[in-house]
Amino acid sequence: MSNVSQRSPELKDGEAILFIAASDVDASLYYASRFLTSDPVAYVELLGESFLLLNELELGRGRLEACADHVLSLLPYEKQLRENGQLPNLVDMLTLFFKEKNVDSLIVPGSFPIAYGDRLRAKGLTVNHRQEPFYPGRAIKTAEEIELVAASQKGTVEAMDLAIDILRSTRVSGDYLERNGSQLHAEDLRKEIHRFLLDRDFICKQTIVAGGDQACDPHVRGHGPLPANVPIVLDIFPQSTISRYWGDMTRTVIRGTPTPEMESLYNDVLEAQGLALDKLRDGADGNEVHTLVVEHFKSRGRKTGERDGKMEGYFHSTGHGVGLDIHEHPKIGRSKSELRSGHVVTIEPGLYYPGLGGVRIEDLVVITDSGHHNLTEYSKEFVL
Amino acid sequence: MSNVSQRSPELKDGEAILFIAASDVDASLYYASRFLTSDPVAYVELLGESFLLLNELELGRGRLEACADHVLSLLPYEKQLRENGQLPNLVDMLTLFFKEKNVDSLIVPGSFPIAYGDRLRAKGLTVNHRQEPFYPGRAIKTAEEIELVAASQKGTVEAMDLAIDILRSTRVSGDYLERNGSQLHAEDLRKEIHRFLLDRDFICKQTIVAGGDQACDPHVRGHGPLPANVPIVLDIFPQSTISRYWGDMTRTVIRGTPTPEMESLYNDVLEAQGLALDKLRDGADGNEVHTLVVEHFKSRGRKTGERDGKMEGYFHSTGHGVGLDIHEHPKIGRSKSELRSGHVVTIEPGLYYPGLGGVRIEDLVVITDSGHHNLTEYSKEFVL
Repeated sequence: MSNVSQRSPELKDGEAILFIAASDVDASLYYASRFLTSDPVAYVELLGESFLLLNELELGRGRLEACADHVLSLLPYEKQLRENGQLPNLVDMLTLFFKEKNVDSLIVPGSFPIAYGDRLRAKGLTVNHRQEPFYPGRAIKTAEEIELVAASQKGTVEAMDLAIDILRSTRVSGDYLERNGSQLHAEDLRKEIHRFLLDRDFICKQTIVAGGDQACDPHVRGHGPLPANVPIVLDIFPQSTISRYWGDMTRTVIRGTPTPEMESLYNDVLEAQGLALDKLRDGADGNEVHTLVVEHFKSRGRKTGERDGKMEGYFHSTGHGVGLDIHEHPKIGRSKSELRSGHVVTIEPGLYYPGLGGVRIEDLVVITDSGHHNLTEYSKEFVL
Repeated sequence: MSNVSQRSPELKDGEAILFIAASDVDASLYYASRFLTSDPVAYVELLGESFLLLNELELGRGRLEACADHVLSLLPYEKQLRENGQLPNLVDMLTLFFKEKNVDSLIVPGSFPIAYGDRLRAKGLTVNHRQEPFYPGRAIKTAEEIELVAASQKGTVEAMDLAIDILRSTRVSGDYLERNGSQLHAEDLRKEIHRFLLDRDFICKQTIVAGGDQACDPHVRGHGPLPANVPIVLDIFPQSTISRYWGDMTRTVIRGTPTPEMESLYNDVLEAQGLALDKLRDGADGNEVHTLVVEHFKSRGRKTGERDGKMEGYFHSTGHGVGLDIHEHPKIGRSKSELRSGHVVTIEPGLYYPGLGGVRIEDLVVITDSGHHNLTEYSKEFVL
């Protein structure tokens, strides 16, 4: 798995890459080390050689699981510091290691903790961060990675199907949806989704089940009784606890009867998604894809701007990469970005108007030489 | 909830606290803002005043949920930068904000991303990190917080009870445990625990279900068929998705027949835990508590050290604070730490000898003026 010389071919003599992070929150570290940990560990790359430096608690597992070229114990460095009468701390131990390796210049991720950075600088090392994406190669998925994302997306689609089946089985009772004689709450439906995904080894953070005006704030998770006759946004993005790759998809559905305005809102978003998907291929500019969506909405008279201190219309990006992070490169939004074969991205236009509701439709696709391959084979039926 | 002037009474004119982080991974930010987000947001404290600066996506929810004194939109700063022909980025927007507020010196957490820190410095601001604990007050729980931790620990105890009930119901078949005619795997038991906790609004990361030698590496989660006649370590630490507070407990059990050596190993750990618990009270030194455990094990002839490149014996801390983080201040280990009334800490001695097995027993307790209150009322029966 590890192929460090390919990963960072630009390292010079005296230079090293350094991560000090927990790989369960730092996906680049997990990408490089394939070692999952909740506590900070140190990972170092010299040209053509990678090192994981672990305390005794992590060492056994690290030697079994990590794909670094060398899995080393920090204990000898700790001993050395204690012998010098110093209280051991991670940065000082690493400083000893860098001295051994004749390293005086460190390249760290932008997220590198300033406390470590300043301490390393105080020890005489140069510390510079590298712009994201730290490992540009991460954006372009290998065939194996695409299979893993596809497997996560398959679980996501199945969870969506479960959720939509449940909504379809509800009864419209006044302004709300009922199941088994009582109101169905967003929290209940979310829990059904999470339970389903847990059984399939996924973990969910913030599944969105948001009806009516709640969905107009794209980051509101949704709560309370689910409304009838207005759009409900379902945005499901689970992470596999085994492969660590994410899935991501959104559907908007209505149980009951939409107004013509709601139908038209939905169709505008659906068309925008189709236009964006058609534009995808190796070499396309993400910003052009985004602009296509923006212009399409304008051409349909959909205004974007502030109203009563809140944004309405279309005010988020059209897509983002998905892999070991739920949001990673490339971005498909207001800045230029070259889409490449092997990128795995969402396409998720949306429109949000308080009073009318929110609509978002999101697929996860792989960019190919001539177009894209959609990993999200699932109905886009609006009315249940 | 917010009481900023109490939180950081030492701020001077021209000084501000700054976080740029996602509060679902930065518990201090969540503690200060009570605003849960997966994307980085900016939180600022001046003397007696707190600010959350959000993009349009987060603004609506921020105004509803956050407890900062001011929840501001970044949009005006973004516009200002665009008018100057600059591409907006968060640090430059914040620099405009700090100029308005006459701030030239920033105090950040040690985890503050070096990329932001260096950019702020390049803009002429002073950036210094504050040692952890960033908010020392976080370690001392309010009555309300103790209730929340106790509620999380109650869920943890119930999940442990479920797991132990399942183990008790297994049949010893040769070297392994069987349920319904097939081997019970660590993964299956873990999933039962996770499903139970999910239904009660908890999320679990790395529940440990590790039998035999697997348990000798305290960070191995455990996998494969669960063994009979050897100790099985169950370490459950879920986080409430509602309150964000964690629970944490460990039991070690054996299904089948222990050898006298295993019984004796268990009793040594149980006695050590009792000694440590008895020592707890307001003003006690965490290091003395830890040393008591270390000395007890020594007195029982339990050696700690490296063997075949792996540590065995007792080689982790005796406890740690639990709250919005699963590991937080105070530490009960090799360094001095004053235990205070209102601290919520684990007491979790353990012994690990490959060939014999691992034993760890962990309770979560609140330190009181005269002793402690144990939040973990649950049997410490070894043999099921």
